Parts: sequence; C-alpha cells; structure tokens
Amino acid sequence: MVSRLGDLAASVGAELRGDPDLRISGVGTLSGATSGQISFLTNPKYRHYLADTKASAVILSAEYAEHCHAAVVISDNPHLAYARIAAQLFPPARFEPGRHPSAVVDESAAVDASAWIGPCAVVGADVMIGAGVYIGPGCVIEPGCKIAAGSRLVARVTLCRDTELGERCLIHPGAVLGADGFGLANDQGRWEKVPQLGRVRVGKRVEIGANTTIDRGALDDTVLADGVKLDNLIMIAHNVQVGEDTAMAGLSGVAGSTRIGRGCTFGGASGVVGHIKIGDNVHFSGQALVTRSFEQPGYYSSGLPATENSAWKRAVARIRHLDDFAKRLKQLEKQVKELLGNVSQPKD
Amino acid sequence: MVSRLGDLAASVGAELRGDPDLRISGVGTLSGATSGQISFLTNPKYRHYLADTKASAVILSAEYAEHCHAAVVISDNPHLAYARIAAQLFPPARFEPGRHPSAVVDESAAVDASAWIGPCAVVGADVMIGAGVYIGPGCVIEPGCKIAAGSRLVARVTLCRDTELGERCLIHPGAVLGADGFGLANDQGRWEKVPQLGRVRVGKRVEIGANTTIDRGALDDTVLADGVKLDNLIMIAHNVQVGEDTAMAGLSGVAGSTRIGRGCTFGGASGVVGHIKIGDNVHFSGQALVTRSFEQPGYYSSGLPATENSAWKRAVARIRHLDDFAKRLKQLEKQVKELLGNVSQPKD
Amino acid sequence: MVSRLGDLAASVGAELRGDPDLRISGVGTLSGATSGQISFLTNPKYRHYLADTKASAVILSAEYAEHCHAAVVISDNPHLAYARIAAQLFPPARFEPGRHPSAVVDESAAVDASAWIGPCAVVGADVMIGAGVYIGPGCVIEPGCKIAAGSRLVARVTLCRDTELGERCLIHPGAVLGADGFGLANDQGRWEKVPQLGRVRVGKRVEIGANTTIDRGALDDTVLADGVKLDNLIMIAHNVQVGEDTAMAGLSGVAGSTRIGRGCTFGGASGVVGHIKIGDNVHFSGQALVTRSFEQPGYYSSGLPATENSAWKRAVARIRHLDDFAKRLKQLEKQVKELLGNVSQPKD
Repeated sequence: MVSRLGDLAASVGAELRGDPDLRISGVGTLSGATSGQISFLTNPKYRHYLADTKASAVILSAEYAEHCHAAVVISDNPHLAYARIAAQLFPPARFEPGRHPSAVVDESAAVDASAWIGPCAVVGADVMIGAGVYIGPGCVIEPGCKIAAGSRLVARVTLCRDTELGERCLIHPGAVLGADGFGLANDQGRWEKVPQLGRVRVGKRVEIGANTTIDRGALDDTVLADGVKLDNLIMIAHNVQVGEDTAMAGLSGVAGSTRIGRGCTFGGASGVVGHIKIGDNVHFSGQALVTRSFEQPGYYSSGLPATENSAWKRAVARIRHLDDFAKRLKQLEKQVKELLGNVSQPKD
Repeated sequence: MVSRLGDLAASVGAELRGDPDLRISGVGTLSGATSGQISFLTNPKYRHYLADTKASAVILSAEYAEHCHAAVVISDNPHLAYARIAAQLFPPARFEPGRHPSAVVDESAAVDASAWIGPCAVVGADVMIGAGVYIGPGCVIEPGCKIAAGSRLVARVTLCRDTELGERCLIHPGAVLGADGFGLANDQGRWEKVPQLGRVRVGKRVEIGANTTIDRGALDDTVLADGVKLDNLIMIAHNVQVGEDTAMAGLSGVAGSTRIGRGCTFGGASGVVGHIKIGDNVHFSGQALVTRSFEQPGYYSSGLPATENSAWKRAVARIRHLDDFAKRLKQLEKQVKELLGNVSQPKD
Repeated sequence: MVSRLGDLAASVGAELRGDPDLRISGVGTLSGATSGQISFLTNPKYRHYLADTKASAVILSAEYAEHCHAAVVISDNPHLAYARIAAQLFPPARFEPGRHPSAVVDESAAVDASAWIGPCAVVGADVMIGAGVYIGPGCVIEPGCKIAAGSRLVARVTLCRDTELGERCLIHPGAVLGADGFGLANDQGRWEKVPQLGRVRVGKRVEIGANTTIDRGALDDTVLADGVKLDNLIMIAHNVQVGEDTAMAGLSGVAGSTRIGRGCTFGGASGVVGHIKIGDNVHFSGQALVTRSFEQPGYYSSGLPATENSAWKRAVARIRHLDDFAKRLKQLEKQVKELLGNVSQPKD
C-alpha cells in the first residue's frame, strides 16, 4: 500500500517537516531503509544513522529533528507513531468470508457470515463465531466456545470446551487455551485427577504467542483481562487472573490461583508461584522467581547474570558457606570489640 | 448429572452429617457455591467461609465439622473425596464410537470398534488402538503406535513412530511424544545427527500436559511409568526414565538418560541435568537446578526469590566478590588471633 | 538393513580388527546389544562393559581396543563414526512422492514432483517446495514459503508467511516458524501492536525441535545459519541471528535482536537478553542468564545447584544481607588495622 507522507503524519497527530506529497510505500531501519520508505528513531544509540539514512522520512522526537536531512515526522512517542503508520502501510492480510470445503463445522455452530473457517479446521457443537473472525488452517475449536468479532486465530490453535475470546484477539499457532489445569489429589502416594470444571475467559485485544498454554480453571475461571499480551511458550495455570495490559515475555510461567494486576511486565522465563497476589504496575526482570505477593509498584529481580565459569564455581562454593561466614564475622566483631576495649582501657 | 448426597458420601467412604436425600448437581468454592452444590475445605485459611457458605454440603475433615451449618461430608482426605465426588458429578464427555469421515486411517491400523477417531485426525500404518480410546481432532498417530484401552488424546496430539501408551492415559493438546532426541556428534565443529532409534513407552494412568514434549530414546527407550503426571510445556529428553507417580510442574526439563524414582515432585521450571539418578520421594522446589544425583528422599532447592531491584543489584555485585570476602575474612581471623595473643599475653 | 562390517568400517574410514564379513543388522548399547549388533564406547566410564558385551562389533578409540573381545572398529571420533554407521543401518523412512487426497494445496504452489504432501497438510499460495521434501501430516505452510530440497517436516509443523528453509532441514512436530515477534508500543499504559514485517530465514542442515518457536523479524529477518541445532521448546525472538553450527538445548530462550556467533552451545533453559552480541565458540551452562555481550570464546555460567532445602533457605537469607556483611567486614578491617597499629606501636 502506498500513502502520502502528509496523510501518514496527520493520522498519528504528528508534525511533519518535509514534503507532504512524498509517496511512502514501505518501512525500514535507519541503516537499511531505501527511498520511498519511512524509518524511525527510538533508541538514541542509533542516532548517528540519522545523517546518512536513505529513508525518505524518519519518525523521531523533536530533539533529533535537526540531525536528520530527510523529512521528519515529529512525535512525542515515535515508537507508537511508527506502529500506527506501519499498520496502515501493512494492514493484516484480508480474506474472503466463508469456509474451506475441508473444514469440519458442526451444524449447531453459529458462524457469522463474514467469518472465515480455514482448511482442516474443526469447529464443534454450539460454538459461536463473530463477525470478521479468521479461523486459520488446522485450528480446533471445541464445543461451546465463543469467539468475538474481529479475532484472528492464525493456524493450529486449540480452544478447548467453553473457552471465550473477546473482540480483536490475536492467537498465534500452537497456542492451547482451556486444557485441563494440573489438579491432583493424593491417595497414599498415588495421584488422582481433580476434575477441571472452570473455563478460560479472555478479554478484548489480547495477543497470545505461539505454543503458549492457558489452562482452564478448576472451579472458577482462568481470566485474561483486556489488552493482555503474552509472548510464546508461556504457561498460565488454572484460576490465574491477569489484569489489563499486563505483558509477559516468553517462557514465563504462573502457577495456580495467582492474581496479577494491571500494567505489569514480566521478563522472559519469569516464574510466579501459586496463590499469591501481584499488584498493579509491578515489574519483574528475566528469570525472576516470584515466591511471595508483591502489592507495591516497582521493579523486582532475582536472576543471576552469567559470568566466567571458574569464577562462578568459586562463588557458588562460597554461597554454600555464607552461613559459616556470618558466624565467623559475628565472632570477629565480638573479639575486636573486646580487643578495642582492652586496647583503649590502658589509654584511659 | 444429579446425585443424592448420601450416595456421594457413601461412594467415597465418608461420614455424612446431614440429609442424605439432598440433591447435588454441582460443585463450587466455599465462597462461590450456591444451593444444590457441594464444596470442600482443604486449606485451613479458608475456614472462615464455612459460616456463610451457601453450598448445600461441604467436604471437610472432622475438626471443622462443627463450624459448618450446611451438611458435612467428613473425610480424612477431603481433597481426594472432593476429586472423586466431582468426577461422579462431571464424568468425562461421552462419545459415540466410530470415526469422522474426515479422519485418515490407514487400512492396516487395528482400531477397536468402541474407539473414536475425530475429524482431521491421521492414523498411520500398523497402529493399534484399544477399546474406548478417544483420538481427538487433528491428532497425528504415526505408524506402529499402540494406544491401550481408555486413553484419551484431547486434540492435536502427535505420537511419533512406535510410541506406546498404557491404559487410561490423558494427553492434552499439542503434546508431542516420540520426536527425535537431541543427539549430535561433532565433526570438527560441524554437528552430525545421531539416529534416534529408541521409542517412548508410557505406562497406565499417565497425564501429559499441553505442548509437553517427550523425546524418543537414542537406543533404549524413554519411559514414563504408571501414574506419572506431567504439566504443560515440559521437556523430557531421550532415554529418561520417570518412576511411578512422579509429578512435574510446568516448564520443567529433564536432560538425557537421567533416571528419576517414584513419588518425586518437581516445582515449575525445574531443570535436571543428564545422566544422573534421582531416588524415590525426592522433591524439588520451583526453578531448582539439579546438577547431581540425589538418592535420598528430601526437599531440595536452589531458586532465589525475587526482591527489590536495587537491593538485588547490590547483592549480585557482592556475590561476585565472595571469594575476596572469604580471603579477607580469613586474614582478619588470623590478625585477630595474633592480636588476642598479644593482648592477652600481657595479662598473663 | 543388513550390512557387512567391513563395508561399514570402510565407509567411515575406520580401521577394522575382526571379520569384515560379519553381518550387522542393528545397534545397541554395550550392555544391551545382542549378536548381529554393533555398539560403541564414547564415555570411558562404561569401558568395563567391553569385556562382557554381546555386540558383534564395537566402535571405539584405539586405546580401548585391546579390552574388547569382539570385533573392533577403531576411530578417532567413535561417536561420529557410530552416528554415520547407524544412519546407514537405519536410513530415514522412505516415502512415495505425491500428495495425500486430504492435503489442501493451493494451485499456485510449486511442488516438486518428488516431494510428498501428507494427509491434512495445508500448503498456501505461491509456496515453493523442492525435490524430495517431506511435508508430514497436519503441517501448515502459509503463503510465500520456500522449502529447499531434502527437507523434512515431520508432522504438525507451522511455517508462517514467507518463511524460508534451506536444504536438508529437519523440523519436528509442533514447531512454529514465522509467528509474529513480540513487538509492542505503549500508549499511556495500553499496548499497541507493532507490525512484524520481517521473515524467518533458515539455512541448510538445520534441525528444530518439537514445539520450538522462531519468531519472524520486526523489520529485518530472523536468521538461523547453516547447521544450527535447536532442541525442543526453545524460543527465538524477532531479529535474532544464530551463527553456523550453534546448538541450543531445550527450554532456552533468546530475546529480540541478539546476535549469536558460530559454534556456540547453550545448556538447557539458558536465557539470553535482547540486543546483545555473543561471539564465536561461547558456551553457556544450563539455566545461565546471559545479560550482557560475551565476545570472547569461553565457558560461562550462572545457575545455582540445588541443595538441601533448609540449608538453602539459610543461604538465601544471607545473600540478602551480603551488603551488610561487606560493610561490617570493611569496618572490622579498619578496626583491626588500628589495633595492629596500637599493639605494634608499643613494640617499637
């Protein structure tokens, strides 16, 4: 799609310094863009590329405008302006409504006429599929699911029984929503399954990454609120609640019944134990192990950075002896105090 | 399904205090249950809900019976009693035997007449499928697999060549059993594949979570014994053996050839190195890194709990200097010892 | 397949001590092999099995030859020799070219006559599939993908739009290549999607494990070079570049835009942050958290080994107080220095 630069700038409420009639047909990095493309600067460490970029226009904040010889689109939030301009230049692939002949759709399913059911997709009894929904190839939608308008299941997504998706969700391949939670009762060493009777309910504008799994609730539902963004290979256990606009990076996991607030972020491979409460705007760095409730906004960590192997081995050995260190330190303090007493007394 | 309360209590060998003719049609949490539902108390911190619960009956241990105004079902193991009662109220969805017209079943496959092969499922040559087996939509069963009676593959499960499943297994969507193990030989920096010639053999009553992967053995088989329970997104490498009734939480991984005993538990995101031996009844907490054999029953950990970021950064910096700390501590001890000698000598 | 031992030894350039006309029909471990099978010794700790092995031949290095009563195939790299001999005895399953009637192949796709498209596989518009490619059951190949000669997608693999695979790649079930990267711009607390416009490009001889996910680039491509080997459940984020012959064990993750060199190895559950650079021949052990660039070859770690729970809890508590320890240690050093001054002065 080709757009006038003036129209693009206006669409995001940005100031344009340059020719509004320039034709923009693509996007590129500052160093890689070619004529006809628009680029952006969000990370100051790349600002030296401004002088030589071949982009026809650059989205940036006002302070860098003078360093750029190309047309500039000035925004307080260049990343956001870029996202919106790129979305106009590259809208999601359109599709014809209908269903592929190889799709298997139960006759009791209510599929909106503007939706698409792709090849080898399977849609069960009593499923409700809203306007403009895209069900990609190989998806499995079990009985009783509801998918609201504008949602897109890319390919090979599984929604187990009674899962509900809000409007404009985007679910990537291999994601599984509504599989049984990991509920086990122990009978003298032998595990017995606890029926998982809740559902998964997902709000609007939720994005779920490839091969991520969201388990159904044991009794109550597992709930992802509006605007939640989950990366790939994430595990959300039964009865977890995730608040609005919380984002989680890949390979993170949240154990059962934990409640997470709004606007939180979790670095990759974070692990959250069950039955705790995370407040709003709480942020964890990668590989953090979250073992208790964190109600206050803030930044929290526990990951240890990798270092040279032999030095690391020595440090690990010392960690084991910290208890001993502490005792020896205390003993020394006592001895030195006595010595100070002895030494100073003679001076009195 | 609606049941008499008396029948439910009797079915789990529990004492009923209340009207045996009450009709129970559902389950709920103590705080959320409504009339006609049965609830349970297993976590003492919820006991204050007993006074006000609207549940018609509550499963609990004897000590809490007097605090509950509803009918009580008294059990030494309320969680287990609940699991069994819930399983009666909500039996697994029944299915008609047969095969969906869109399923692709090799003519050499031996499929029991009471089994179901779902839409778009693919069953290869020489597969054996036992009585009452449910193969959900989109499953792929490669040639030579054997699936024993009563097992259920929910949807989009892959069993690679020659995988064997015991009776009454439950495999959740996206799980992959029998993919090649990660076997590589190095030829002057270039990796060459080592053929993976073993199988995956799974015992009875094994549950495998969504998107979990169990690799086939390199030479011998990878083996999950009866009653093993695996959560989502777990990785079991080639030649691993997992003993009876061992349970593992999500995102855990076990490297090649490790042998794990019976009745073990692994917290989420545990990582176990290869070629070691874990005994029976060994328990690891979340994010534990298991680097050596643990033969003795017990509880083991290595995860570091998340804490406030700036404090954490200081602690991490200190960890790197532990070796230096140790040396300085030793030096101080030596000096103080000398001082004590010097100081005390004059007293003699 | 049955082979002459002499032919097998010659095929890998190894010296044979024994009867070249022995017929070898299989492989086995030293302790498990039976007559007609060939075994190998790579780990010296198993050398005591040499005396009693029932294998007809053993691949080993020269130093162990005399301890083996069976025929020996002497190689400087027994593991590699074994891999190649096993590959001859157990070649990949052959297949007839063509397409299963249930496969859905867009008429614009260019599928080589020697390729196979399996049951319930879906191949989109403008896809190019090379000679001898195997597309297993339930795979989804979105429009514009290119798959070079000899590659094998075992089952239920997803390649999203415009993904490119080089020759002789092997992709295991559930893997997802080319799903959107996790690109989000923040609009006053609300996330907005950044279009992901790059592709995934994979070189030759790349193996990708079950349920591993490789995201497409945001602008530039995500690139796996020739010979990269990825285990199961790995997450490679957008714009990552992985160099030739680098291998990564299961449950590892690499965040966006990180560049990794050649010949690196990553232990299981390693986590690498975004926007850093890892040089050639850099090696990380399991659960390492890689938070900065590592340009020098070497071995690096940060994982903490699991230990007995109560001891661990004490060590964790001490870690939190390391800052306090450091201050007390410094204070003691100062005091002891003063004391030494005081004590020694009288000696002057």
